[in-house]
Amino acid sequence: MKSLPFTLPALKAAYAAGTRPEDVVAEVYARIRAVDDPGIFIHLAEEEEVRAAARGLGAYDPALPLWGVPFAVKDNIDAAGMPTTAACPAFAYEAGEDAFILAQLRAAGAILIGKTNLDQFATGLVGVRSPYTPPKNAVDPAMAPGGSSSGSAVVVGHGIVAFALGTDTAGSGRVPAALNNIVGLKPTLGAFSASGVVPACRSIETVSVFALTVEDAYEVFRVAAVYDPADAYARPVAAPPPGPTPPHAVIGIPTPGSIRFFGDQVQQASFNDAVEILRGAGATVKEVDFAPLYAVAEMLYDGAWVAERYTVIEDLLKTDPEAILPVTRQIITHAESLTAADAFRGMYRLKELIRQAEPLLAGIDALCVPTMPTFVSVADLQADPITPNSRSGTYTNFVNLMDMCGLAVPTPPRSDGRPGGVTLLARAGQDGYLAALAAPLEAAGTRTLGATDWPVPARAEAVPAAAPDEIALAVCG
Amino acid sequence: MKSLPFTLPALKAAYAAGTRPEDVVAEVYARIRAVDDPGIFIHLAEEEEVRAAARGLGAYDPALPLWGVPFAVKDNIDAAGMPTTAACPAFAYEAGEDAFILAQLRAAGAILIGKTNLDQFATGLVGVRSPYTPPKNAVDPAMAPGGSSSGSAVVVGHGIVAFALGTDTAGSGRVPAALNNIVGLKPTLGAFSASGVVPACRSIETVSVFALTVEDAYEVFRVAAVYDPADAYARPVAAPPPGPTPPHAVIGIPTPGSIRFFGDQVQQASFNDAVEILRGAGATVKEVDFAPLYAVAEMLYDGAWVAERYTVIEDLLKTDPEAILPVTRQIITHAESLTAADAFRGMYRLKELIRQAEPLLAGIDALCVPTMPTFVSVADLQADPITPNSRSGTYTNFVNLMDMCGLAVPTPPRSDGRPGGVTLLARAGQDGYLAALAAPLEAAGTRTLGATDWPVPARAEAVPAAAPDEIALAVCG
Repeated sequence: MKSLPFTLPALKAAYAAGTRPEDVVAEVYARIRAVDDPGIFIHLAEEEEVRAAARGLGAYDPALPLWGVPFAVKDNIDAAGMPTTAACPAFAYEAGEDAFILAQLRAAGAILIGKTNLDQFATGLVGVRSPYTPPKNAVDPAMAPGGSSSGSAVVVGHGIVAFALGTDTAGSGRVPAALNNIVGLKPTLGAFSASGVVPACRSIETVSVFALTVEDAYEVFRVAAVYDPADAYARPVAAPPPGPTPPHAVIGIPTPGSIRFFGDQVQQASFNDAVEILRGAGATVKEVDFAPLYAVAEMLYDGAWVAERYTVIEDLLKTDPEAILPVTRQIITHAESLTAADAFRGMYRLKELIRQAEPLLAGIDALCVPTMPTFVSVADLQADPITPNSRSGTYTNFVNLMDMCGLAVPTPPRSDGRPGGVTLLARAGQDGYLAALAAPLEAAGTRTLGATDWPVPARAEAVPAAAPDEIALAVCG
Repeated sequence: MKSLPFTLPALKAAYAAGTRPEDVVAEVYARIRAVDDPGIFIHLAEEEEVRAAARGLGAYDPALPLWGVPFAVKDNIDAAGMPTTAACPAFAYEAGEDAFILAQLRAAGAILIGKTNLDQFATGLVGVRSPYTPPKNAVDPAMAPGGSSSGSAVVVGHGIVAFALGTDTAGSGRVPAALNNIVGLKPTLGAFSASGVVPACRSIETVSVFALTVEDAYEVFRVAAVYDPADAYARPVAAPPPGPTPPHAVIGIPTPGSIRFFGDQVQQASFNDAVEILRGAGATVKEVDFAPLYAVAEMLYDGAWVAERYTVIEDLLKTDPEAILPVTRQIITHAESLTAADAFRGMYRLKELIRQAEPLLAGIDALCVPTMPTFVSVADLQADPITPNSRSGTYTNFVNLMDMCGLAVPTPPRSDGRPGGVTLLARAGQDGYLAALAAPLEAAGTRTLGATDWPVPARAEAVPAAAPDEIALAVCG
């Protein structure tokens, strides 16, 4: 049991061979104790209660895709009977019921272990903006854990649970994945219900999935992508069965003039290698000027969308401003200077920038970008809490504003041993296409999963995939 | 010539029989002199110049769908070499080139006569909020001309031109149609380019078409609905050939508890008669609670969207506030108290209201509503410039916020002789479906076109129409 990889196929095989879920739960808690990072969970369920819940699952039911699978959720997602804090004790409340998406996962047999730490109110990409002890990066404690979904990425990186939910507005479901050598699936906006989730930027955010492999992340996506009519931003989104790698994908990458690594040549070399992997799998690579995308990215905090965050904490700001971290308060109170006219001007500019980008993206099936331009250390953030955070969003901030889906995928280690990673991006509804496209990246070279010594497993055989356009039509119809 | 109806089929027949366009132009100006309403045009082209332009068309070309067809445009739409005022002299500028949509119409052979009066900055539904002499209602000068596209509706109502362009955010392309016994086609948002148009609420408005018949309005729609990549809000929208009346339409009407006539029982009886016409043509009628739609409607001025209007006149408000009419200034400066957070809260509420309305609208092909709940007179507006204006938007204000297309259609005269009229509404992309659905309404009873004595012509034979869902798919694909 100690060596059992917490991937879905390994867990299924173990359960089929007679392993009991309460023993898996015991192993979860053993791993928590072994890792000994008090920053991961804001609320950890009592081991005895979780073991009882595991026993309550009864006999193994292979028809339930997540039967006996341990998982965690970011602490801005409601779990019945547990506090929801959004990493702000003064904001905390006890949730009366599970968030809609959590209920889908539990109905599929998954076992909730606890609620994970985050950058307060999901505002940040670093993972250290929490009044609770921040978690340590699972791969290298000198590095930032990444945020805002810090605890969810770290807990998966250690192989403590098989998957965890995060949320993603600016890149909170992708940057921490890259920092912890795991997969971050940022679904099409509206695919996952936001009912029972503390919003950050309600119009441009989504719950996200961290897992050790793309196959696992996509399996969770398929379970969780249930249309929720009670969420006004929900949309029906296609979740087709996993497909084989598309043989002739057209992949856009930033032009040499518009790619940004802030001097990190090792990251640049690693990215070039990843592009070669895609080319080796049959992809055609096209260079795209990213200037319009960066212009979109700048609107996320410089534009009016920060006012969405303001609507969430406005009452608290008025009654107890000191309850909010200074850095978080500084970012969000910028909204106080923004008028409704500013908000509409921002939307006009966004529409115009998207229109400018359209010809650049025409004929391209997916973009491939570094998940982050360079690594950020805890020391960097002690010296300057803002700039490294902003840089981390270079390749993530524009994605939700442009209604794209994304998949952060580990690639072979960099030449200095740090995790390699890229993100694949495509237009809304192409989540399944990205999962298929990611296979050769994930399988390349010799790497292990997260911070574990588990090798990358072979993928189950996939059914033939639909072409991207066919999927798109299914979404519209 | 004096008796020639300015409908497209009548003009085509006349041209085919040898009539010269310069003679049609001469007749346009003769009719202008006969009507003798100085409020219609803010800028009228010189007759000699227009006759010269008509001569410049050369020999009759039946392949050009609008060859030799005289038209006018609302004075918030640019026409090369003419001033654009938006009914605010201090805002005026001379347009260097035609608006994109105007260029489409001219390329199809249409002849521009002039720029028409409007409620200043297209803010109003009454047509008397202009520093220029307001136009008189074409049918009954005691009634309001309707706005904001007052001049465009009146000039068509008199049969001076065959069609005119308006714009429509709150109902400015529909209410004036009802008041002047003509057709008002409010296209799907994005179908018509907004390039070269002074915006009112850029995210939820469109240029619109006034014509004497549905067939003519839809023909203009088909010429004008050209995708303009330079307009960030433009969308490709289907413009199929005109079809026959769909035989089994499911039509939603307001429940007795949610229909509003403000005491006008004659309007109520007229509406009931119109519904019977649809039923007689094979439609199934379903009652729909309009409460969520009215809640959407209230957001148009009470919500944050008024800030869109503010962005247009912000500079003028700062440099020369007195240049703006007091009523217009009062409405638009409400935006000064609205924050960006208010704007996002408004968008959340809109999304939620639309979601609430979805089950009510499921299975319904189109809505049929009174275009306006009751008539508004010039005297009413002198007594109270706000309330009658607000009431006029009862059945129009929610339409663009909910991304519907609309078609205001005259019906047989009311029992008191005033024009009858209803509006058909459907989801985005169904413009052609509405035009087909309107045929029996327009053909019923014995009525004349606008304020003229021209009878309703028989429609040209239509090709079989696509079902609404097929059209929708074409839009997505």
